[in-house]
Amino acid sequence: MKIETALYLIPVGISDGPVADVIPQANIDIIRQIHYFIVENVRTARRFLKKVDKDIDISAITFFELNGHTDPMAVSSYLDPLREGNPVGIMSEAGCPGIADPGALAVRQAQHKSLRVIPLVGPSSILLALMASGLNGQNFAFHGYLPVENTEREQKLRELENQSSRNGMTQIFIETPYRNARMAESLFKTLKPDTLLCIAENITDPFNERIVTKTIREWRVSKFETGKVPAIFLFYCLNPKKELKI
Amino acid sequence: MKIETALYLIPVGISDGPVADVIPQANIDIIRQIHYFIVENVRTARRFLKKVDKDIDISAITFFELNGHTDPMAVSSYLDPLREGNPVGIMSEAGCPGIADPGALAVRQAQHKSLRVIPLVGPSSILLALMASGLNGQNFAFHGYLPVENTEREQKLRELENQSSRNGMTQIFIETPYRNARMAESLFKTLKPDTLLCIAENITDPFNERIVTKTIREWRVSKFETGKVPAIFLFYCLNPKKELKI
Repeated sequence: MKIETALYLIPVGISDGPVADVIPQANIDIIRQIHYFIVENVRTARRFLKKVDKDIDISAITFFELNGHTDPMAVSSYLDPLREGNPVGIMSEAGCPGIADPGALAVRQAQHKSLRVIPLVGPSSILLALMASGLNGQNFAFHGYLPVENTEREQKLRELENQSSRNGMTQIFIETPYRNARMAESLFKTLKPDTLLCIAENITDPFNERIVTKTIREWRVSKFETGKVPAIFLFYCLNPKKELKI
Repeated sequence: MKIETALYLIPVGISDGPVADVIPQANIDIIRQIHYFIVENVRTARRFLKKVDKDIDISAITFFELNGHTDPMAVSSYLDPLREGNPVGIMSEAGCPGIADPGALAVRQAQHKSLRVIPLVGPSSILLALMASGLNGQNFAFHGYLPVENTEREQKLRELENQSSRNGMTQIFIETPYRNARMAESLFKTLKPDTLLCIAENITDPFNERIVTKTIREWRVSKFETGKVPAIFLFYCLNPKKELKI
C-alpha cells in the first residue's frame, strides 16, 4: 500500500538487540517506501536501514544531515522533497527523533509550513525507564543534562527534590556515560533517605538491561556500581500525606 | 524461546488501528507465553489479547484487576505468580502501563521486592505528540489534568507559561474529551500570541490523527475545531534570546 505524503518520525534502536524487538512491522513497511531521510548521523542511519532490511538500496537514498553543526537556514530546504510530493523520514542517532535531539527543528519547520507530520512508535529510553521505575507516571519532567560542576549539580538536585516533594513530580535526567558514577555519588549524598531513586541502564539490551528502584537509604548500603553505559536517572519524593506506602 | 521470569510492562493500542502498526513482533511472542496479567480493565484486556492473537486461550489466563477501586493491600498478592517463577504482564486500558495510570503501584511493589521488571516498547500518546509537535524535546513536563474550574485553570496556564519562558520547558497535559473545546478556548485566550501550541488528536488512528502546531496568534484566527476525542495539549514559549526563529 502506498504511504501518505508526510514527514515520518522514525525511531531507531537504542541497544544492539534485534530491530523486531523494538520496532513495529508497520514502520519497516513505511521505511521501505522512503527515499529521503533527514538524519542526525549518516553512518548510523545507513547501518539502521541495513538492519531493518538488508535488501534496501542505500545508493538510491538521499540523506540530509541535521545535527549541532547544521546551519538552521538549510533545514527548510530539507523539506523540499516533501513539498514536491515525496514522503520524508527523520531519524536520530538513537531512540525517538525530536526527543533530546535536534530533529525537532525540522519538525517545527514542517508544522510551520502546515505539512503533515506522522510520528511512529519506537523505543524511548526516557519513557521505558519511567514505566519500569514504578515512580509517578501521572506527573513527570525530563531535564536533559544537569550541571557538571559538583556544587551546582547538588544545588540543582536539591531544587528538583523540593519540587518533587511539593507536587509529586518524578524528575528525570541523563548523564554522559563516563560521568554516571559521579552522578550516582551526588545523588546518594544529596537526596533525602526516603526519596526513591531509579537507575536504568542499557534499556532494551536483551542481556545487560538493568532497571533498579530503591530508596536513597537502600542505595547507600547497596553494592550497585553504575557502569560507563547509557543510563537514565529518575527520582521521586514519596509524600506520606498524599500516598499509601507499600 | 522461553522468556525470562519477570514483570512485563505491555503497552496496548491507543486507537482502533491494527496492532502491528504500534506493537513490535517481540511483544506478541512474549504475550503468548504469559498466563497472568494485572490489568486496569479485564474486558479491554481480553479484547486486546484477542486482537494480538485470535488463538489465545483466554480461559487459561488469570486476570488481576488494578484500578482506582483496588485495595492497595491486595496488589502485593498479584505478584505471587511471579515469586513462584511465572512471568506476569501488566496492561493498562490504553498506551503504556505506569504512565498516567495506576499500574505504577504494582511496578513499585515489584521493585520493592527486587523482582525483575522489563518494559516493552509501544505507543504513548504523550511521547508521540511531543515528537510530532516540533516543540522542545530536550526539556519537558507532563502534568496530567489541569484544574477544571476556569479561573484556576487559567492561573495554572499562566504559571506554566512563565515557567516555560524562563527555562524553555515544553508543557504537556491532557483533558477529558468533552472538555477539549473549553480547554482550547482557555488556551487561546490565556497564552501569549507568540507561544507555540500543539493540539494532537486521535494519535495513531490511521484515518483521524491530527497533530497541529501553531502560534497562539495563528490559532486565534484558525477555523480548527477540537473534537470530543482523545487529545494531548502541548505548549512552549519561544525564547528569542536563546533560540533561532524559523
